[in-house]
Amino acid sequence: MRRFFTALLIGVLATPAIAADDIVLRGMGSFHIGGRIAEVKGKEVRMIVRQPGGPLTKLDPNGKYMVEQMYVQYFLPKNKMGKLPLLTWHGGGLTGVTYESTPDGREGWVNFFIRKGWDVYNSDAVERGRSGFASPDVWPSEPTFLPFADPFERFRIGQGEGSWSDDPAQRKVIPGSQFPVEAYNNYMRQTVPRWLSTDQAIIDAYVALVDKVCPCVLLLHSQGGSFGFKVAELRPDKVKAIVAVESATAGIVANAPKLKNTPVLMIFGDNVDQHPRWAAFKKIDTEYANAIKAGGGSVDWINLPEIGIKGNSHMMMQDKNSDQIAEVIQKWLVAKGLGE
Amino acid sequence: MRRFFTALLIGVLATPAIAADDIVLRGMGSFHIGGRIAEVKGKEVRMIVRQPGGPLTKLDPNGKYMVEQMYVQYFLPKNKMGKLPLLTWHGGGLTGVTYESTPDGREGWVNFFIRKGWDVYNSDAVERGRSGFASPDVWPSEPTFLPFADPFERFRIGQGEGSWSDDPAQRKVIPGSQFPVEAYNNYMRQTVPRWLSTDQAIIDAYVALVDKVCPCVLLLHSQGGSFGFKVAELRPDKVKAIVAVESATAGIVANAPKLKNTPVLMIFGDNVDQHPRWAAFKKIDTEYANAIKAGGGSVDWINLPEIGIKGNSHMMMQDKNSDQIAEVIQKWLVAKGLGE
Repeated sequence: MRRFFTALLIGVLATPAIAADDIVLRGMGSFHIGGRIAEVKGKEVRMIVRQPGGPLTKLDPNGKYMVEQMYVQYFLPKNKMGKLPLLTWHGGGLTGVTYESTPDGREGWVNFFIRKGWDVYNSDAVERGRSGFASPDVWPSEPTFLPFADPFERFRIGQGEGSWSDDPAQRKVIPGSQFPVEAYNNYMRQTVPRWLSTDQAIIDAYVALVDKVCPCVLLLHSQGGSFGFKVAELRPDKVKAIVAVESATAGIVANAPKLKNTPVLMIFGDNVDQHPRWAAFKKIDTEYANAIKAGGGSVDWINLPEIGIKGNSHMMMQDKNSDQIAEVIQKWLVAKGLGE
Repeated sequence: MRRFFTALLIGVLATPAIAADDIVLRGMGSFHIGGRIAEVKGKEVRMIVRQPGGPLTKLDPNGKYMVEQMYVQYFLPKNKMGKLPLLTWHGGGLTGVTYESTPDGREGWVNFFIRKGWDVYNSDAVERGRSGFASPDVWPSEPTFLPFADPFERFRIGQGEGSWSDDPAQRKVIPGSQFPVEAYNNYMRQTVPRWLSTDQAIIDAYVALVDKVCPCVLLLHSQGGSFGFKVAELRPDKVKAIVAVESATAGIVANAPKLKNTPVLMIFGDNVDQHPRWAAFKKIDTEYANAIKAGGGSVDWINLPEIGIKGNSHMMMQDKNSDQIAEVIQKWLVAKGLGE
C-alpha cells in the first residue's frame, strides 16, 4: 500500500508543481472578426512623400481593402469556474491593454479574471490597436490625438481643468488619488488615436464577436459602455450579464426594456459628482438604468466611496487598488450565479 | 507514514491535473517601452469634420504628446527551458499577431515556443498595432495601406504579379502552396497601415526593449530582419543568437563583424529564386551573411526545399506546416546550447 502511494505520488510530482500564483491555461490565442471589403475607385493617383527628404512618388489608392475588422485575444483557464466567457471592452482612445497591465507594472484585470477561472476575451475596438484602421479614402474623417493634459484632467486623476503641468511637482493630483501618477507617462504610452466617425463599424464588429463566442458576460469601460449596451440591446438573449465601469453614455433608453433578463452592475469611482463631465455621464447612465428597471430588469449600482473604497479615478482597473475593485465585480458575478 | 503519504497526495491532487497540451505560466502581461515626448507648437487651430455630416469644429493640435513607444506582451512558462528570452519581431504592415495565431485558426509560434519553455516577448513595432501612431503634425508623411492583391502577389502565395482575382476560383495560387489560402481574408484582417518614415524610431524602441530584457535571442521576420540586425549591431553583447525568417534586407555590411559572437540562422521558403523581389532580398542577405562570416562569425543558412520542406510562402509561420518549421528553428536553438 505504501509502495502504491509512493508510486502514485511520484507520478503526480513528475508534472511541474503548480504554485498558487501560476496561470494554467487549456488554450490561448487570437483572431480577427467582422469587417467588410471596401472598394476605393475613381480616386486620382496622387504623389506622396514616402520618406522625409525623399522624392514625390506615385500612390494609387484604388483597389479593394479589408476594413473595420476587430482583434480579439483569448485566454482559457484550465480551472474553469466562470459559467460563461467574459468579454472585456475598453474605452475611447485606448485598446485591450487597458485590462492587461497597469502603468506601474502590476497585473491587470485580464490576469485577475483568468485566475478566477473565467474564459477571457480581450479585444481592440475597430480602428484601434491590432484591429488596424482604414485609409482616408474609406473613412471620411481624421483621427484625433490625446495630449498629456487631456486624460489627466478629464479622467479624475488631476483636479480638473488646469491641473496638468509639464513639471510633475506642479501637477495638482486629486488628494488621495489611487491612480499611479508616478507612472503617468506609461499610461500615455497606452493611448492610441481615435476616430469619431466609426461608431457603427465598432458596434457591427462587437455584434459579430457576440455571435461567435456568446452567451457571455460583458465587462465594459467608459466608451465601451456606450457600445456594449447597444450591442446587448441587439443580442439580449446572448448577453447574460453586464458590468459597466463608468459607462460614458449607455444604450438607447427606448430599448432598455430589452435587457429585462440581463442583470446589470454599474460602478462609479470617487469624485464623480464634483466633475461636471462625469456627473453628466452618471445622470445619463441613471436614466438608462431606470429604464431597464421600469422594463422589469435588474440594475445594481455601486458608487465605490459609499462602500468605503475611495480615491478611484476613471481608470480604476489601473488604480493601485485595482484588485480590490475586481473583487467587487467578482463577488457580484458569483452572487448572480455566474462564477464560483 | 501512510497518513503522511495520503495527506501529501491529497495536497498535490488538489491542484488541477495538467494535461500535456496545457500551457502553464509563471507570469504573463504587457508593457510599453521607449518613445519620446513630442511638442507640437505654432500650428494653426484648424477646423475638422469630426463625424460625417457633422459641423466643422475647432481642433487645436498644439500640445505635448507621447509618441514612438512600443507595445510588448510577454509569456513566461513555468517549465522554463530556453536559456534566454525569445523576442519575436514581425514584418512590415503587420503586428505581433503574425506569431500568435494563423489565419485558419491554428496555434501560432508564440504558443509553440512557450510550450518549448521559452520566455516569449511578442511586440508591435512603433506605429503599428497597440504601439499607436503619431499625428501628421509629428510625422511628416502619411501611412500606406495594403489592398488585397498586394500580399497575395508579393508574399509568394499567388504566382506573382497578376495572380490575384476577386473571384477565389480565378486566383492563381502557387501549386503546392502551404499558405491557408481559404483563409486569406483573415490574413488581410491582420494587416495594418504602414509608414515609410519611421525606421529610426522603430530601431530606437527595439534597442530600448533589448536594454530592458536581454541578453536574449531574436526571432525576426521580413522587415523585422532589417531592424533586428541593425539593433544587434548596436547591442552585440546582448543579442546572443538571431533567427531570421526571410529577412527583407539585413544589417549594415560594414557592421556585420560586430556579430562575430552572435550565431545566426537564415531561413528561406520555397519559390524564392523564381520571384525577383525575394531573389533580390536573398542576395542582400547572402552578402550580409558573408560579411558576418568574414568577420569571424557563424551563419547557418536553410533553404527549406533543400531539406525537403516544400511550398512555403513568405508567411511561413502561418503556413499549414508552420509547426514543422518551428521545429527546425527549435532544433537549431538547442544545437546552439540555448534550449532543451
